[in-house]
Amino acid sequence: MISYTDTGAIPGITAAGVNREFIKYTPAADTEFLYYGFCKCINNVPITPEGNPTPAIITRAALRLADIPFLVVDAGSKIKPSIPYISFGIDPGHNIESGRAVDATDVKMAFEYGSILGKQLGKSCDLLVLGESIPGGTTTTLGVLHALGIDAKYKVSSSMQTNPHRLKNNIVKHGIQKSRIAFGELRNKPLEAVACLGDPMMPSVAGISEGVLSVGGKVLLAGGTQMAAVLGILKSLGLKMKEVCIGTSVYVTDDHSSNLAGLINSISTEVPVFAADLRMEKSIIRGLEAFARGFVKDGVGAGGASIAAMLKSNGRINGSMLLKTIEEEYEGVLHGKSH
Amino acid sequence: MISYTDTGAIPGITAAGVNREFIKYTPAADTEFLYYGFCKCINNVPITPEGNPTPAIITRAALRLADIPFLVVDAGSKIKPSIPYISFGIDPGHNIESGRAVDATDVKMAFEYGSILGKQLGKSCDLLVLGESIPGGTTTTLGVLHALGIDAKYKVSSSMQTNPHRLKNNIVKHGIQKSRIAFGELRNKPLEAVACLGDPMMPSVAGISEGVLSVGGKVLLAGGTQMAAVLGILKSLGLKMKEVCIGTSVYVTDDHSSNLAGLINSISTEVPVFAADLRMEKSIIRGLEAFARGFVKDGVGAGGASIAAMLKSNGRINGSMLLKTIEEEYEGVLHGKSH
Repeated sequence: MISYTDTGAIPGITAAGVNREFIKYTPAADTEFLYYGFCKCINNVPITPEGNPTPAIITRAALRLADIPFLVVDAGSKIKPSIPYISFGIDPGHNIESGRAVDATDVKMAFEYGSILGKQLGKSCDLLVLGESIPGGTTTTLGVLHALGIDAKYKVSSSMQTNPHRLKNNIVKHGIQKSRIAFGELRNKPLEAVACLGDPMMPSVAGISEGVLSVGGKVLLAGGTQMAAVLGILKSLGLKMKEVCIGTSVYVTDDHSSNLAGLINSISTEVPVFAADLRMEKSIIRGLEAFARGFVKDGVGAGGASIAAMLKSNGRINGSMLLKTIEEEYEGVLHGKSH
Repeated sequence: MISYTDTGAIPGITAAGVNREFIKYTPAADTEFLYYGFCKCINNVPITPEGNPTPAIITRAALRLADIPFLVVDAGSKIKPSIPYISFGIDPGHNIESGRAVDATDVKMAFEYGSILGKQLGKSCDLLVLGESIPGGTTTTLGVLHALGIDAKYKVSSSMQTNPHRLKNNIVKHGIQKSRIAFGELRNKPLEAVACLGDPMMPSVAGISEGVLSVGGKVLLAGGTQMAAVLGILKSLGLKMKEVCIGTSVYVTDDHSSNLAGLINSISTEVPVFAADLRMEKSIIRGLEAFARGFVKDGVGAGGASIAAMLKSNGRINGSMLLKTIEEEYEGVLHGKSH
């Protein structure tokens, strides 16, 4: 799922993109990398200012290792990728400081199209793994959870080593002032909450999840604290959570600057959180070892795809094997597969 | 797979659309009907000038009866449907009388994107059923098969009761004069053949088929004589045909104004043609009974979807059961589910 919110372009909010100009290319570039091993819309693989690569490197390694098929959904990305993708036909999201984050008709359509797609995919696989690439997604999560009556302050994660909680809290505060939504005021109107303080990814992933669950399927929400927003929406809609789980990396669950488990627990005690240990601290490649030092951590469904690879292979694929393949992907990027 | 060629707007070439203005809406409307049971881009379900409904009624009945998931691919349709769809990002095709039917870069991209998608879908199902909705598709088939060195004159089918062979032959003749492609000249360059005398559906469906076959999957090409063009491309590319079959309705295979079996046989003797008997001659609804009198015949994967429903249900779903459900769909359309 690739998406965009102007919130992600606020300076200091995300590590996605070397500079602000690149942020809007990151989701498209991530999905091109998944299919091709290089990017088409930009010259290099997305990388943070510190030189740490996109988590799509992990995702690609996991999907290839376990031969897992995948499709890409565009739900309001600003730059369209040069791949076949499923279009939801919606616009990018606005800066949530405006209090009008996503057009209400787009929120509705995203959920409805998601539901249709989820029904088809739910009939076609045992477990649907849903990942995302939307820079700024933890800040919009903070906003939506406020409207739904879930306190996520200082609990959301960050793609940066130093979590800019105060900046995020301030952005959300501005959005609340503009939209005049009190804490929990929209606890029964999750799509309105998204329209005020969310982003286009949320109703899209929530819709797909609803569709999968409605045909008896299972969902793994592959991501860090952003997926708390999706879970909050599903709960608000009264959906049964028995067949839903969260999958991420240990770099999110071990992070002391956020609290994924606490956050998920405050939404539903039924939903387990699984974390893949990718042994990044052992990597000889500094850009990968950085994940273990709190950079990037997860994204593009990296942790969830790693778990799916372990599940599909009945454990034959483990963290060490994944790390080796991730390092190979990284070497491939360095040695000109990326051009 | 929805697509468009200006060839389909030549007067007298197709039964799709009450008038020329509507022809470009037909593919989008067909797929909206599949998901919703009514259309969004037009007020009514697509219907021929004689009052015969789109074969999408059959497709929808078959898919629902057997609970078969489906996705829609847009490969150059002129009107985009209000559904989630997979975009190949290519333009509609031109009138083949120009000898420049599809932009060469679009042909290449359609095949490549198709191949990527086919690999994902081939890993996700036992049998991929590929249908199409492209008005004018039998005329472009005639054109492409000329370039590939397969004589399809008087063999291609028609959505009309009286097959306009002379008109089709004349259109192709003009295209050949403009492109200066001799019979069989592009037998080893199928994508060039499409660029000169084909349509955007062909490289897209051929690409998906190639992708499915490359991961060990099976393909059912759901359609009448248009699928001969796809088969011609696959053969020209040197692909093994062992896991490919054609699926249509008996109204195509019994048609005396065309020769599907003969045409397929002249391309490959390995590829079986299956035809679903939908008992339409027994229908009390005149618009459906008309199928047995040579109107419409097949399209939107109707015959192939019916076969898939029979296969998936191990024969529990048969022609009589399908006819009953098709009649119910038709009644639903009449009684205001369509608005």
